[in-house]
Amino acid sequence: MNFLTLDSSSKRLIVGIKSENKEAGVLLNSIGKHGAFLMRAIKNLLEYADLKTSELDFLGCGIGPGSLTGLRVGISTIKGLAYPFNLSVATFCSLDMLAISTLLPEEKGVVARKGREGHYYWRRYRLTGGKLIRETHPAFSPLEELANKLDLDETIILENAEHLNEFPEINSRIARPPSIEDLLCLTEESYRHGGLVDLRELNPYYLQKSVAEINWEKRYGKPENP
Amino acid sequence: MNFLTLDSSSKRLIVGIKSENKEAGVLLNSIGKHGAFLMRAIKNLLEYADLKTSELDFLGCGIGPGSLTGLRVGISTIKGLAYPFNLSVATFCSLDMLAISTLLPEEKGVVARKGREGHYYWRRYRLTGGKLIRETHPAFSPLEELANKLDLDETIILENAEHLNEFPEINSRIARPPSIEDLLCLTEESYRHGGLVDLRELNPYYLQKSVAEINWEKRYGKPENP
Repeated sequence: MNFLTLDSSSKRLIVGIKSENKEAGVLLNSIGKHGAFLMRAIKNLLEYADLKTSELDFLGCGIGPGSLTGLRVGISTIKGLAYPFNLSVATFCSLDMLAISTLLPEEKGVVARKGREGHYYWRRYRLTGGKLIRETHPAFSPLEELANKLDLDETIILENAEHLNEFPEINSRIARPPSIEDLLCLTEESYRHGGLVDLRELNPYYLQKSVAEINWEKRYGKPENP
Repeated sequence: MNFLTLDSSSKRLIVGIKSENKEAGVLLNSIGKHGAFLMRAIKNLLEYADLKTSELDFLGCGIGPGSLTGLRVGISTIKGLAYPFNLSVATFCSLDMLAISTLLPEEKGVVARKGREGHYYWRRYRLTGGKLIRETHPAFSPLEELANKLDLDETIILENAEHLNEFPEINSRIARPPSIEDLLCLTEESYRHGGLVDLRELNPYYLQKSVAEINWEKRYGKPENP
């Protein structure tokens, strides 16, 4: 079973490939525009693994929540690769990457990723017997609302040290950066548990409106058929 | 400060590059001969980071213990890159990679990597306040000798599930695969703490004799001036 997978939901662009017995991956952190580097990384990975796109059995994709532009670049690229061979795509929540890389055994935690100012994307997890349990769906909340939802026996996991002081009452920690193995593992888990979607149904978790939508509404009011 | 670094001591070949504000890495796991892929990965990383070899300030290198052939390939490549620009090399113990990726906060553990049959490379660590403390030097011991040295309050960390049953009395765990960030972090730590060596002094930890040396000794006896 051969697959190629990526997550482009943050400034850490991560791409992996797996075949019967080989694994390879590329990490690009703060490299700049994802779009300028993603296809180059994919081409290099196919070369390392000695595979052609036509030899892939499926693709994988983190569908956010996270950076809207990053997600668009990643998802568009996956669609472009999938289309000629009608490949299906194993999707997963991008916050799961941070949970799987960071949670300690038997720990209960909320992964929170900064959205537009004062807002967070978040999801609650538990790690039980090495298995990641998703306790809630991904959500998008203002800081105060999220802080009120947190339990005292859980840890909030954040991406940047500068955000730790926004949750002074809560046990908090910086996320371990997800590894290429974390990416491959989540993609395989999604594939095995029915996360495979037709490429025409591949859509991101857009939990917040884009700035363009907000500006439109400011100018013209809410659309009647949203 | 720009540097390129690698660890080739196991079947997981891992290469990273870091500049002022960019990071990139390539992981090649079980891809096959390290020698056939390493320079290709280095070339791709320099392209991702938009750096030339001449713009690197130093190099990094895991010097084992581990696969003798893997180490020779990695160290030779680093020497080849270092030579034209007389770059120094920040060295680190390859077992540190497994310790930093796997130890839990405040945990005491021995990282053990399989050597020739019945023998292990090993080193004892403690993770205190997020800092990796090396409690011993790297060593090479037969299984029984290592098992006798282990304390009941520590964990033995192994690379493969198949070796867990060799330590039935001891708290044991499979290592988390080291990430590109782990590699960059260990290299920077070595650089900051005086681990930089002249490229002419770059040598691997050869804790076991090569098969060629053993065969020589069987045939001709131990050399008089080893």
